[in-house]
Amino acid sequence: MSTRYALGIDFGGTTIKTAIVAQDGRIISRGSVPTGMPASPEKLLATTADACLRQVEAARLALTDLCGAGIGMPGTVNQETDCVEYANNLGMTSFPFVRKLRDALGIPVTGGNDADLAALGEYTAGAGKGASSLMLVTLGTGVGGGIIVNGKIWSGCNYAAAEFGHMVIEAGGRPCTCGRRGCFEAYASASALTAQAEKKAAEQPDSLIGKVYAASGHVSGKDILTALKEEDAAAKEVFDDYIYYLGLGITNLINIFQPEKLLIGGGISNFGDLLLNPVREHVEKYRYSRYSDRNTQIGIASLKNDAGLIGAAALTGIFDR
Amino acid sequence: MSTRYALGIDFGGTTIKTAIVAQDGRIISRGSVPTGMPASPEKLLATTADACLRQVEAARLALTDLCGAGIGMPGTVNQETDCVEYANNLGMTSFPFVRKLRDALGIPVTGGNDADLAALGEYTAGAGKGASSLMLVTLGTGVGGGIIVNGKIWSGCNYAAAEFGHMVIEAGGRPCTCGRRGCFEAYASASALTAQAEKKAAEQPDSLIGKVYAASGHVSGKDILTALKEEDAAAKEVFDDYIYYLGLGITNLINIFQPEKLLIGGGISNFGDLLLNPVREHVEKYRYSRYSDRNTQIGIASLKNDAGLIGAAALTGIFDR
Repeated sequence: MSTRYALGIDFGGTTIKTAIVAQDGRIISRGSVPTGMPASPEKLLATTADACLRQVEAARLALTDLCGAGIGMPGTVNQETDCVEYANNLGMTSFPFVRKLRDALGIPVTGGNDADLAALGEYTAGAGKGASSLMLVTLGTGVGGGIIVNGKIWSGCNYAAAEFGHMVIEAGGRPCTCGRRGCFEAYASASALTAQAEKKAAEQPDSLIGKVYAASGHVSGKDILTALKEEDAAAKEVFDDYIYYLGLGITNLINIFQPEKLLIGGGISNFGDLLLNPVREHVEKYRYSRYSDRNTQIGIASLKNDAGLIGAAALTGIFDR
Repeated sequence: MSTRYALGIDFGGTTIKTAIVAQDGRIISRGSVPTGMPASPEKLLATTADACLRQVEAARLALTDLCGAGIGMPGTVNQETDCVEYANNLGMTSFPFVRKLRDALGIPVTGGNDADLAALGEYTAGAGKGASSLMLVTLGTGVGGGIIVNGKIWSGCNYAAAEFGHMVIEAGGRPCTCGRRGCFEAYASASALTAQAEKKAAEQPDSLIGKVYAASGHVSGKDILTALKEEDAAAKEVFDDYIYYLGLGITNLINIFQPEKLLIGGGISNFGDLLLNPVREHVEKYRYSRYSDRNTQIGIASLKNDAGLIGAAALTGIFDR
């Protein structure tokens, strides 16, 4: 039996990551190139195709050794037309990126939204393996995510579902980049956490985060984590507040969808049990289904930055029986 | 070709409705009996079985003419064990109601949550017919609903999904019966609308709703509708506020799930275009996918009180090709 390989591509605003993924889910070779923004869609396409060819070469394979490629894009990818319909950060609208990449490589290429593919990756080979249904909530610069139903990405009628960050949880609350006020993203993103920490740091210059802020002019997620471990009261106050909103939003998602598993990913998931335990407590207390025998299991995503690459490879069907 | 029939049962806190539904979706005979609460689960079962037998008799049919029965219950129905796991208003916990009804009738009986079945009904024979995915949001005493994915009810890992009313939209806001604060239900239910109208009526006794309130001691949904048509400023203020929250919650659901159709049902759906137009405007303005070519169509559920009966009948498979 010959081993089969797929090419996974994670196209981000800063870097384009590529990987050769084996049938057993292992990444056998990986690389990344700068996206090189700003650039025209045609230029981005050429950069991507070139990165793919180099990746295949680096793995000492030929394109004919691959069953295909999958690519995750930070935007809406229409799988019927193989167009990127809308990718705000790339300045891309209705551009047939996936189709053109297929033409350039001469192998099957399938595209999807990057957050959806991260969810598919976790379902395929990560903490969500085997779950009949899954929600991945990613806490990074923004709040995004993906939904898996019966082993497939659920992206709605227009490939735009799972925008968990744009669920209003506090009507009239903090402004959001999307034009609404009180979006989950404005409370539960890494950016929201650090912004609140900096506010608190300025108010309490003698606290641990206050000193970090005075010295460096900002407070990072890592600074907050360190301060929490050293029991800094100011950091704890900010974090408790953050957890309250995070727990609230996750409880909402569970009340709506009741997935078998809900995974927390993104940079903030590095807080591990410090995050997971109080979120679980909040959800346990407030979910509508608290009397059910069975309830959504909440965990931390396990594939970290590889989730998108694995999910992209999964689009080729390489992991299907 | 002989016509086939199914028995649909809509088990509510006040009445148990029954109907004989033909293969083409028509209700050919219907009836209802008082639920007779408070009553033991065994007593409720006997009442239901009796109502079913009478309904079959009234249609001049025999049980053997039916392909089966479906029953919607106001609670969590486990379709693997045929138990009602939890039905707060019936005081029922882990009771094998569906299994026992099957034993009593001697025909196949399948059970489900009443709101889920209303969604299935709308999908099968109502305003959601043919939609690849559907959300039904019911605005009644509470706010409930159902999700249809690929022609099937999505009820999550524990038959408890689609509790749209228990999505917090205003952290720390109005108290909800579920123990949380700021739930969608506390803003978008019929009860919330009339409560706000009564508050406003007390403040503005010279308004139209103020006069109704002074005369009768309460303001009904119908009173508000009448007052709106007569351009009563107090009623309009209350209703605009209601629409704001309703639009906000519906936008949330669309950002999360992007169904092909989202239908509004329940008593408040009788407001028709007065409700639908401003909700559509709100969603159009704020949905995250406003740049998509394709977007969720928002409409009013069409089967009204029959949705649950038709959905219950659909559980028997009578409408399947």
